[in-house]
Amino acid sequence: MLKFDKLSLNVPETTKPRVVIIGGGFGGINLAKKLSGKDFQVVMFDKQNYHGFWPLLYQVATAGLEPDAIAEPLRKLFDEDYEDFHFRLVRVTGVNPAAKTVQTLIGDLQYDHLIIATGTKPNYFGNQQIQKYAFPLKTIPEALNLRSQFLQSFEQASITKDPATRQSLLNFVIVGAGPTGVELAGSLAEMRKHVLPGDYPGLDFSQMNIYLVEGLDRVLPPMSPEASEKTHQYLADMGVNIKLKTLVESYDGEIVTFKGGEQIPSQTLVWAAGVTGSLIEGLPPEIVARGGRLPVNEFNQVQGYSDIYAIGDIAFMKTEKYPNGHPGVAQPAIQQGQHLAKNLRRQFRGEKMEPFEYFDKGSLAIIGRSRAVADLPGKMHLSGFFAWVIWLFVHIYYLIGFRSKLIVLSNWIYRLFTYERGTRLIIRPFVRKEDKAAQEFVEKNEMS
Amino acid sequence: MLKFDKLSLNVPETTKPRVVIIGGGFGGINLAKKLSGKDFQVVMFDKQNYHGFWPLLYQVATAGLEPDAIAEPLRKLFDEDYEDFHFRLVRVTGVNPAAKTVQTLIGDLQYDHLIIATGTKPNYFGNQQIQKYAFPLKTIPEALNLRSQFLQSFEQASITKDPATRQSLLNFVIVGAGPTGVELAGSLAEMRKHVLPGDYPGLDFSQMNIYLVEGLDRVLPPMSPEASEKTHQYLADMGVNIKLKTLVESYDGEIVTFKGGEQIPSQTLVWAAGVTGSLIEGLPPEIVARGGRLPVNEFNQVQGYSDIYAIGDIAFMKTEKYPNGHPGVAQPAIQQGQHLAKNLRRQFRGEKMEPFEYFDKGSLAIIGRSRAVADLPGKMHLSGFFAWVIWLFVHIYYLIGFRSKLIVLSNWIYRLFTYERGTRLIIRPFVRKEDKAAQEFVEKNEMS
Repeated sequence: MLKFDKLSLNVPETTKPRVVIIGGGFGGINLAKKLSGKDFQVVMFDKQNYHGFWPLLYQVATAGLEPDAIAEPLRKLFDEDYEDFHFRLVRVTGVNPAAKTVQTLIGDLQYDHLIIATGTKPNYFGNQQIQKYAFPLKTIPEALNLRSQFLQSFEQASITKDPATRQSLLNFVIVGAGPTGVELAGSLAEMRKHVLPGDYPGLDFSQMNIYLVEGLDRVLPPMSPEASEKTHQYLADMGVNIKLKTLVESYDGEIVTFKGGEQIPSQTLVWAAGVTGSLIEGLPPEIVARGGRLPVNEFNQVQGYSDIYAIGDIAFMKTEKYPNGHPGVAQPAIQQGQHLAKNLRRQFRGEKMEPFEYFDKGSLAIIGRSRAVADLPGKMHLSGFFAWVIWLFVHIYYLIGFRSKLIVLSNWIYRLFTYERGTRLIIRPFVRKEDKAAQEFVEKNEMS
Repeated sequence: MLKFDKLSLNVPETTKPRVVIIGGGFGGINLAKKLSGKDFQVVMFDKQNYHGFWPLLYQVATAGLEPDAIAEPLRKLFDEDYEDFHFRLVRVTGVNPAAKTVQTLIGDLQYDHLIIATGTKPNYFGNQQIQKYAFPLKTIPEALNLRSQFLQSFEQASITKDPATRQSLLNFVIVGAGPTGVELAGSLAEMRKHVLPGDYPGLDFSQMNIYLVEGLDRVLPPMSPEASEKTHQYLADMGVNIKLKTLVESYDGEIVTFKGGEQIPSQTLVWAAGVTGSLIEGLPPEIVARGGRLPVNEFNQVQGYSDIYAIGDIAFMKTEKYPNGHPGVAQPAIQQGQHLAKNLRRQFRGEKMEPFEYFDKGSLAIIGRSRAVADLPGKMHLSGFFAWVIWLFVHIYYLIGFRSKLIVLSNWIYRLFTYERGTRLIIRPFVRKEDKAAQEFVEKNEMS
């Protein structure tokens, strides 16, 4: 299979305006859903065939949920009552604004409206060594790789002869104390307390260390100081080693070296320290704003264009209330997608577009069972059990697709009463490509 | 991680008899469970960290179930009330009967009783070309690879320019009409009817062909002629092309050539045509019996040894009723594991061992919803809805672990009312290593 010389995009000709959406994330799918009807032909490109509910990705990494619980096939989201919708599993390689075409490896496609909803990717700030050895956590394959890495670390720690190697296998360093880093650290701490000692009776889990490293002066910097403080206290109670105002200088797969010289031996460094926009070739590089984002006006039009839009994490919309752009979470993407659909309809009817305004529904983060923090509208701050219940309901409510909701709900209820986690299967081979000894070991041993 | 020079087996010294079990399949886990107590130290080796419920593996391949629904971590199976049990995720490389040691890459281990429960692997009958290009279906990674292959075939068929390529992508050839082949063919036929047309509205599914190829003169040869006949009828009704008395001569990844010269262009050939025992180095090759199995006496002792046993699919126990050995299904493995545990206890108490006798509980196969066949004890044959209900209950009953049962049950109930299948996420990259164009495509396109 995969003969790209024999493939073509195969999108039917149309007299309707063609809306091309690059990316099936929160922004892309909400836009596409609201465009359903007779006015537009809608084409969506994504390099994955599914939409992921990324706020729960850390649960896949810690074996709390399986991938199917947090993802829905894009084809399934749009398969009914949506005649002129066309999903194509292909990566966009560029855009030609002058010709109004999107370029892919298997052909170009003319657009009337182009929406860039490509989101972000990890930002290693140019450090190629870290990029090579660190574990990112932005996609489902990455979450499964990280899960295998965690589980294999415990397996290996169980049978190592060398105490220094064992310690290095049991030191987990998470860089970046945003929501992903905090939730991952909390989840690992709960596993250490409730799950792992039963699975690995031969290991002394007082030797397992979870380091959460943050360059700024508090955890959860996007949230309120109240939420940060409470989260810090929760994590400390759960035995997470928090290192604030600390930057990673280098990581060679064995030793984490911090700026200032301190070193921690660790086989596992998770990189959750920052993101940068997933840009597309063909737009003028000089317009790109901070964080690799595309500057847009209040209608989400990319600077200099009236037919190219950016929504979600890739968009940088400077407003009075959000001088640094909107937070890189699901809500702005969802709202921009829905709003842009309305504006495209307005254009279609010859009406004026309306400016986007972000409605902040609040922020949530979960640290562990019965431990969450919430910043609600009106400067209300919650923490503890009640925030945790809100977190549960909000996440279940927004999870897309009936089946996922049911599975996530039943898994949570089950875990609520048993502390048992989901499956801990090592189903993916994972060794670093550069690691010849590991490769050899796997080949000889077929361990994975 | 994975520094094998720094690893050791790390099994504590003991004065109890040490039972070493190679393999955590049906035989191995039932033996280990029944040995729990104060008499033995039990060490289990497996190259996977989970026990799989293989009769449902085809469901993983057709996206009906996720891996976690059919597998349980081995450590979880034995984590409670079983003090002197030691699981090691490592592959056994050989056995030295004279020294009474088992060899692994990270060290040797002395045994008092050695139990070989390694099961089987696909048998390509020496055809290396088929081995290179065919898709086996014996492990979870293989089932996930096959699932990705199915889904990617439909994605590619949706966007191919060339009708011949499209047909080749939509021809699925399953070789071997044993339970795996039959159940996979039936499952694909149901997807073609109820699921795929909704997901791929641009594809004409009357072009999708499912070929089920069998060398013998009937489908399901291990079952009764009545079951074969009914199964044949069900499959034909569902539109499966059955080719009996047909052998595959060659497959180059593009064209299946049968003995006699007929050819079918196909990008997907599933190999379910036969198995051979997963043998271990160090036992005399001349004792190996047909099907690569180890000949055992009525106590499951391997020919020529009193302290080495084989159980399950790898064991060849010739009896009056079963001159070709027991069928290669779960029940003989389960019963032999449980029986051997009793015999080891008898030995421990200085009593005589008792011969194994297989209690045939019957055979079952499922072809589709409300369509199954059953050979029950007493030469009773059932088919249709009632056989299907029995199939459901038997499989749920035997699924190991509370959580798996719940998930499988809820998935089934859900599917029963909606015809919806589970998730259809392409989460694993898969291209043939030999296929340079495909590699290039993936690298350029990051399609997977």
